[in-house]
Amino acid sequence: MQKNIYTDLALEMAQHLQDAKDGGIGGVDGVEIDVEDDEAFSITVTTVRITSEAGEAAMNKPIGSYITIESPEIQQNNVAAHEEIIRILTDKLAALTKNAGKSGGTTLVIGLGNHNVTPDALGPKVVSKILVTRHIMDNLPRELAGGLRPLCALAPGVMGTTGIETAEVVRGLVNHVQPALIIAIDALAARKISRINQTIQLSDTGISPGAGVGNMRTALNRQTLGVPVIAIGVPTVVDAATFVNDTMDLFLSEMSENMPESLKDGADIFKMLQKLEDGDKYTIIRNTLGPLVGNMFVTPKEIGEVVAWLSNMIANSINMATHDGIGRDDINRYMY
Amino acid sequence: MQKNIYTDLALEMAQHLQDAKDGGIGGVDGVEIDVEDDEAFSITVTTVRITSEAGEAAMNKPIGSYITIESPEIQQNNVAAHEEIIRILTDKLAALTKNAGKSGGTTLVIGLGNHNVTPDALGPKVVSKILVTRHIMDNLPRELAGGLRPLCALAPGVMGTTGIETAEVVRGLVNHVQPALIIAIDALAARKISRINQTIQLSDTGISPGAGVGNMRTALNRQTLGVPVIAIGVPTVVDAATFVNDTMDLFLSEMSENMPESLKDGADIFKMLQKLEDGDKYTIIRNTLGPLVGNMFVTPKEIGEVVAWLSNMIANSINMATHDGIGRDDINRYMY
Amino acid sequence: MQKNIYTDLALEMAQHLQDAKDGGIGGVDGVEIDVEDDEAFSITVTTVRITSEAGEAAMNKPIGSYITIESPEIQQNNVAAHEEIIRILTDKLAALTKNAGKSGGTTLVIGLGNHNVTPDALGPKVVSKILVTRHIMDNLPRELAGGLRPLCALAPGVMGTTGIETAEVVRGLVNHVQPALIIAIDALAARKISRINQTIQLSDTGISPGAGVGNMRTALNRQTLGVPVIAIGVPTVVDAATFVNDTMDLFLSEMSENMPESLKDGADIFKMLQKLEDGDKYTIIRNTLGPLVGNMFVTPKEIGEVVAWLSNMIANSINMATHDGIGRDDINRYMY
Amino acid sequence: MQKNIYTDLALEMAQHLQDAKDGGIGGVDGVEIDVEDDEAFSITVTTVRITSEAGEAAMNKPIGSYITIESPEIQQNNVAAHEEIIRILTDKLAALTKNAGKSGGTTLVIGLGNHNVTPDALGPKVVSKILVTRHIMDNLPRELAGGLRPLCALAPGVMGTTGIETAEVVRGLVNHVQPALIIAIDALAARKISRINQTIQLSDTGISPGAGVGNMRTALNRQTLGVPVIAIGVPTVVDAATFVNDTMDLFLSEMSENMPESLKDGADIFKMLQKLEDGDKYTIIRNTLGPLVGNMFVTPKEIGEVVAWLSNMIANSINMATHDGIGRDDINRYMY
Repeated sequence: MQKNIYTDLALEMAQHLQDAKDGGIGGVDGVEIDVEDDEAFSITVTTVRITSEAGEAAMNKPIGSYITIESPEIQQNNVAAHEEIIRILTDKLAALTKNAGKSGGTTLVIGLGNHNVTPDALGPKVVSKILVTRHIMDNLPRELAGGLRPLCALAPGVMGTTGIETAEVVRGLVNHVQPALIIAIDALAARKISRINQTIQLSDTGISPGAGVGNMRTALNRQTLGVPVIAIGVPTVVDAATFVNDTMDLFLSEMSENMPESLKDGADIFKMLQKLEDGDKYTIIRNTLGPLVGNMFVTPKEIGEVVAWLSNMIANSINMATHDGIGRDDINRYMY
Repeated sequence: MQKNIYTDLALEMAQHLQDAKDGGIGGVDGVEIDVEDDEAFSITVTTVRITSEAGEAAMNKPIGSYITIESPEIQQNNVAAHEEIIRILTDKLAALTKNAGKSGGTTLVIGLGNHNVTPDALGPKVVSKILVTRHIMDNLPRELAGGLRPLCALAPGVMGTTGIETAEVVRGLVNHVQPALIIAIDALAARKISRINQTIQLSDTGISPGAGVGNMRTALNRQTLGVPVIAIGVPTVVDAATFVNDTMDLFLSEMSENMPESLKDGADIFKMLQKLEDGDKYTIIRNTLGPLVGNMFVTPKEIGEVVAWLSNMIANSINMATHDGIGRDDINRYMY
Repeated sequence: MQKNIYTDLALEMAQHLQDAKDGGIGGVDGVEIDVEDDEAFSITVTTVRITSEAGEAAMNKPIGSYITIESPEIQQNNVAAHEEIIRILTDKLAALTKNAGKSGGTTLVIGLGNHNVTPDALGPKVVSKILVTRHIMDNLPRELAGGLRPLCALAPGVMGTTGIETAEVVRGLVNHVQPALIIAIDALAARKISRINQTIQLSDTGISPGAGVGNMRTALNRQTLGVPVIAIGVPTVVDAATFVNDTMDLFLSEMSENMPESLKDGADIFKMLQKLEDGDKYTIIRNTLGPLVGNMFVTPKEIGEVVAWLSNMIANSINMATHDGIGRDDINRYMY
Repeated sequence: MQKNIYTDLALEMAQHLQDAKDGGIGGVDGVEIDVEDDEAFSITVTTVRITSEAGEAAMNKPIGSYITIESPEIQQNNVAAHEEIIRILTDKLAALTKNAGKSGGTTLVIGLGNHNVTPDALGPKVVSKILVTRHIMDNLPRELAGGLRPLCALAPGVMGTTGIETAEVVRGLVNHVQPALIIAIDALAARKISRINQTIQLSDTGISPGAGVGNMRTALNRQTLGVPVIAIGVPTVVDAATFVNDTMDLFLSEMSENMPESLKDGADIFKMLQKLEDGDKYTIIRNTLGPLVGNMFVTPKEIGEVVAWLSNMIANSINMATHDGIGRDDINRYMY
């Protein structure tokens, strides 16, 4: 699970741009934005395309596509809405895949995260539902060979339980498998409780497990692996210190608005607290919480169920965007 | 999972009394306290016995025994320490059981909690490891009959997923099974992160799933069920609002100590915040966090593993305190 | 998990009648049969209605409806087919429910089986996905009150791990909850490997956990509980001795057909083996296999996934057949 | 999970030699055998050492050590016996490790198998309990540096769910990590039900996932990886066709012994059946069972619990044989 500041900002950026939608962002060169609403299922799809260095500079993000699928139904047992999300995700994934070129080659799915930690198990769970075919491509009968593409998948685990940097494992595998495309799935740490299990994020600019710790060796992208990397991320937790930090901000701002006259002098305190650099306050809170908190996270009671649904939606979308009208049944006939 | 204010206070009371240990609590009638340290495994066992109405009044808790086993090793993969904890827990449980009388009758183990929510699955996991014998007592050969006691176990689920109050399910079962003793296990919500997975609490005064919401119908104890109830509880989570509340207290107290001169006026604010009734501040925080937070909890990444160890320790202790020198192997021979 | 000879025979009876479909079973009074094929998803639905004592005698089964939904897609990751099965199951369930009368009362869902044994966890997994409402009916706002019915659910465990007969737990609960209808779900032991995970069976004549051992006290039906009981069963395993028995039959019959001339005398042996009463051969095989085999079962590698899909299909169908156009989201708003 | 004919024969060989123990196997050059009995816990440890080419020829197995730990207590909830098995396994592992030389280098643990299939999850579950240290060796304080060795671990999944041959993933990783020693853990398919969950096998001659299908590229051993490979295997299932095959043999041999006079002529049939080459009969049975059976296995109801115990025993032994008096607590302090 990564504290994904980049992805997080992608979402905020999208919302920012959405707000600007009425007024228009006409002035920004090299940035295109598109918002689609599916009212029947309360799904909003926001696509941001950064197409030039000017756009890159304006957005402080690399050239590429950033797609956000938002819906409160992601965490509900709403089969019809999940179907609709699968349909949207398949379309978007197919478009990104086509964009990335080399359509005949092998696709490698990397499920990041720890399958023993419920909210971090998203990536490994997706891997377990992928219809892999790379190992049977040579033995396919003609009627299947038309629709099937070579697909393989690995859940490399997390450094804390393997002792090996995830990027190292992936790089070794890439050398060997020589994929034309990588799709990497990861559970993310959100900044706000209200985002947990509400958003699926796609981008063709890769992913950085452990991003924000300034370690660029760990990034999985075209620069580090020599292969285009599509990233799919879903925020499933908030880390405990971030949670306190943000709640305290809200609390203080509310208190300061409703302050009785007699205490107005104290308002300076709030200003001071609010002026503390984000990083500083976060650090004080971490210190206050002590060493245990690094290991703590905030998550909803239903997390097990929601991760099961999410992995089903994402794996089905990858299967359908890759293979052509073929199900597990067809594949199984040639597997055993 | 219950927000167990009572149990929580039992722990605090024990610590309070521990502090007083050197000076003595000689003045308090009807309260006995005993602290044992097992230095080899960093285990501290504190027993508080309330023996009279005077003690009851002084402690604001019912007459009975309250035993706390504390060790940082509970959440470590330390087999030797876990063995030692099983030994202690078996002893304490056997003593409480003997105290409760009716030694020939059936023991009913109730595993409270939701087996689909990792940190709340402790009770159901203990149930799944109990060596139940009630259904085979009539067919036992003489060589086993000496050592085996009638034991049965149920995980009744939680009201949120059954639609039935837990106490209702248990009462129905008690009418039917007519046990001589009930042992109820529950995962608790701790007040502080530092207590998560560090403490096992026993008491012979019963348990209240959902305690603190003022609903006495839900208590499982001798008064409501007509049978002595031994409770075993382990704090495995902190609820999200409590977590913010307590962290903010710490943060503010630290800030107020290290405040620059120029802001001293603002200190009144901190005093005001600190003067807010606990319940009031908690309510403001809950409101700040919004409706989602009621469903959120804070827990460590290793919770799955730790709950597995805990359930193993507790189930083994119940098996050994109940049966006499007999393992699953012996029982299995007569089960199928 | 039960060795459900009754349910098994229901399926065979249905197939038998299906075979007779062209020729008609016109002569049998009090038996109606209906076969629907959904070719798009390879789903066959067979409904047998026994409507009189004559039919009861002819079929050797109690008056009532027996519905079998068969499809190879049940065990495939085929979302569209699962949707279609949910639609069919909801319809059939709604019809049976309406038939059972008392439409205003509480429905109690009983999930039989052991949630720790993957192929036996179907019932408990369904329970965990039921949208229970019984505990919040008094606090519902008018806009929900129209669509919601009181629904509750319990997974009572299995006698081997609770020490209490399942029927005892259910009877106690029924006394307390006073439901108008019970829906009981159980994983069944199939007779043939080819039936595993291919069939969902419904009936309004109840269910007998542990049927076939001649213990009628254990049945869950209108006679024993005073409430109509709809049973939903899915074969998920074959018990090991049955598996050998049936495979050996096939093997011997194939050998005897392809026997070389020189060994024709030995054919008597095969006849003898084939003449052995089913029960006798089964008993010899059990004895051959020894005491361990009682605990052994045969199941496919994908059982975990398939049980997840099945529980999702069944729970969604119960939710939709009971409540009216209302999802978990609506309910959650009033639960916490 | 592999159908491990080699390992299986190792066990049979050990038993064969055990039988010969009183008479001695003095005549066989290059083979040493040692049997230790731990009567308190019903544990038998058999060590076979093949020390020369003559021994290799006599035993039809490569030079190396083959250790078998047998106990019925492996599958019982017997904490004391499990402790004793950990002690024995740690000793044996430490001896094999020392033998393999290069004591200062990195140890790489490979957990073979599919973590989503309960009886095949042994390897991945061991990996999740390994105290990995390779990634923190550079930041260790002096007091830990003495006792800790660099340890890392990966569960590479199975070809059926990754689309990549396991040996390919491991080879890529070995190139990168450059370990001095590999320890590979796998769940095995036993030949007989009576061996399931009763035996832990160690050897320093490596392991072949999918052995017996004649594919030597898949072996993990010193020849294929350039690094010594210690294999730890536990039989946890019997595949369905083998199960029928072996049960039928037993059944037929019993029938032929108890045959009535009038049918004695038929005895030829039994002789014929018994004369069928093992492979032929197995093939006929597989064909009889049809395509579904390739995917079916026989396993006991308690398999989930037993795999949890086994993974705990094996992981603890690897941790203790590798590190020196250091627990997870010490390591955690430097991990986050």
